[in-house]
Amino acid sequence: MRTNKKDFVFFVGDMAMNFRTISFDGKTVEVLDQTLLPFKELYRKLSSPEEMADAIKRLVVRGAPLIGVSAAYGVVLSALVHKKEGITGLRKGVSGDIKLLAGTRPTAVNLFYALERMENILHCDVNSLQELVHLLIEEAEKIHKEDMQMCSRIGDFGEPLVPDGGVIMTQCNAGALATSGIGTALAPIYRARENGKNVTVYVPETRPLLQGARLTAWELSKNGIPSTIICDSARGLVLKSKKVNLCMVGADRIAKNGDTANKIGTYSLAVLAKENGVPFWVASPKSTFDEKIETGQDIPIEERDGDEVRKIAGKRIAPSLPVFNPAFDVTEASLITGFITDKGIVKL
Amino acid sequence: MRTNKKDFVFFVGDMAMNFRTISFDGKTVEVLDQTLLPFKELYRKLSSPEEMADAIKRLVVRGAPLIGVSAAYGVVLSALVHKKEGITGLRKGVSGDIKLLAGTRPTAVNLFYALERMENILHCDVNSLQELVHLLIEEAEKIHKEDMQMCSRIGDFGEPLVPDGGVIMTQCNAGALATSGIGTALAPIYRARENGKNVTVYVPETRPLLQGARLTAWELSKNGIPSTIICDSARGLVLKSKKVNLCMVGADRIAKNGDTANKIGTYSLAVLAKENGVPFWVASPKSTFDEKIETGQDIPIEERDGDEVRKIAGKRIAPSLPVFNPAFDVTEASLITGFITDKGIVKL
Repeated sequence: MRTNKKDFVFFVGDMAMNFRTISFDGKTVEVLDQTLLPFKELYRKLSSPEEMADAIKRLVVRGAPLIGVSAAYGVVLSALVHKKEGITGLRKGVSGDIKLLAGTRPTAVNLFYALERMENILHCDVNSLQELVHLLIEEAEKIHKEDMQMCSRIGDFGEPLVPDGGVIMTQCNAGALATSGIGTALAPIYRARENGKNVTVYVPETRPLLQGARLTAWELSKNGIPSTIICDSARGLVLKSKKVNLCMVGADRIAKNGDTANKIGTYSLAVLAKENGVPFWVASPKSTFDEKIETGQDIPIEERDGDEVRKIAGKRIAPSLPVFNPAFDVTEASLITGFITDKGIVKL
Repeated sequence: MRTNKKDFVFFVGDMAMNFRTISFDGKTVEVLDQTLLPFKELYRKLSSPEEMADAIKRLVVRGAPLIGVSAAYGVVLSALVHKKEGITGLRKGVSGDIKLLAGTRPTAVNLFYALERMENILHCDVNSLQELVHLLIEEAEKIHKEDMQMCSRIGDFGEPLVPDGGVIMTQCNAGALATSGIGTALAPIYRARENGKNVTVYVPETRPLLQGARLTAWELSKNGIPSTIICDSARGLVLKSKKVNLCMVGADRIAKNGDTANKIGTYSLAVLAKENGVPFWVASPKSTFDEKIETGQDIPIEERDGDEVRKIAGKRIAPSLPVFNPAFDVTEASLITGFITDKGIVKL
């Protein structure tokens, strides 16, 4: 457990960043504790699958791509713990821990995808226990690397959209903190800065859970990109009066017709962008496109506990009256300028 | 100082309401302490102009119309205090207290308008000290009555717009709590309920200061009108999916062309209403129309301290980064269906 010094630089894929969400040194996994952000930047060393399951459950690590990478390393930690039990003992022990890790969060597809890949390795033919542990580590590092590459490619494809001196508005946190790389919606911004462009970002606070104010503003600042926090209700005024070049947001699921589910408030941002002639881009890996779903009307919208609205950071702010608290909304494809994916720009 | 029983009914003008923001019993002024809402309903007795000035300053009473009425009664309290000092002494003492009251809040026009009317009475010819005190009380009660009537008329003119079983969305608090009557934007809703209509209201929490969640939801509930609190960012989804019949908001200033300044977030609500074909009404007394201002571009927009966004209810939620915190925005007349005023419905 250590607190980061201000000038500490990590290499996340090919880019120097001032924090790193996750890393593995061959023995332990180090994660940035996101429950303490933005007030404390603290890295925790995890050395057992139980510690990793707890970290995922308590949102120490969060964001669908990062959860996938974390779960893969959780399996590696399990293998290291059960190493002394022989191949059969290790396979049995790790299988149990995979179930533990799978039970941490119900929604993120990445979690199950990563665990499935690790489980396939666990049951493949090997000549020795050493080889099996080696293959598990290799697969986890591959999942990690693929995630970083996905972010990098979104950054590459999106970078030309960001003008020098550009002003960008985002929503929620689809940044480096949600991935093991440089983020999705924020990746083109980091790439633009790396290329010497000046960029500034308007960050809506993103009620109810304030991922904009707490996480996005922090990570941009940490990496030298100026930002301005605004209330979600001020987005319209800012788009009308502040010469915003483009909006760039992430996505939780995209239907075949391009309708996009993302954090609550994304739809209204798209409407306000259209009203003010501001291009509206969705940055997300190709894997977010769900080929089984025709339109946004078929995407289920999670409703969360009303106390997320009645309370802020644990403090009660509203009376005990009914609350409607949808966690996501659907933005129709007609409101979206295009998609920045890891395979290239997609326009409908 | 007393706490209200749940079944206590006040008559506010011609309507029975379950709370009352201000009243005068000939000796003291009783006000509902709005700093304690929604968690405590406490009435404070004020018996000196200093106490009233403090109440206005600390937002114990708030809302432009209510501030005007409170200031007028503050002058009455001053007259009662200085009664023993003879006509000349009283005039001198009250003049000083009028200055004190004028220094409490800088923006609300109603404050200065009410104090000007009271000062005119203070210097008129009278035959006795008793007559002067009587005239001051009469003028304050007239200001109070006019405010209640203004609200009632807005309620009368707006009521036919509210269908039985209607679903309405508002913003901020333009309710009874902001006036000495039944409110402005909420007046048609109270009138509709009185006429036996079922009405439900979506209440956006209205960051940064949460007047929606703290005040509007409380006052509607207190008067038997069902409401649902939502985050400001959920307004778009609700307008798209929840069969909202109309939006109804208040106004801080209206330009000659109908452009309307109101609480931040009102403009974006109007854009979202237009996108979803929901009528958007502004309820406000005729006195809010500023004949000196041609368009909304000439209305100055107050920017407030960034800590209102960085903190919620005193608790810090965001890092010490730049914040843009406009308190108001301007909704263009083209986005407004019409105005519900105390003189009738105005369509442009």
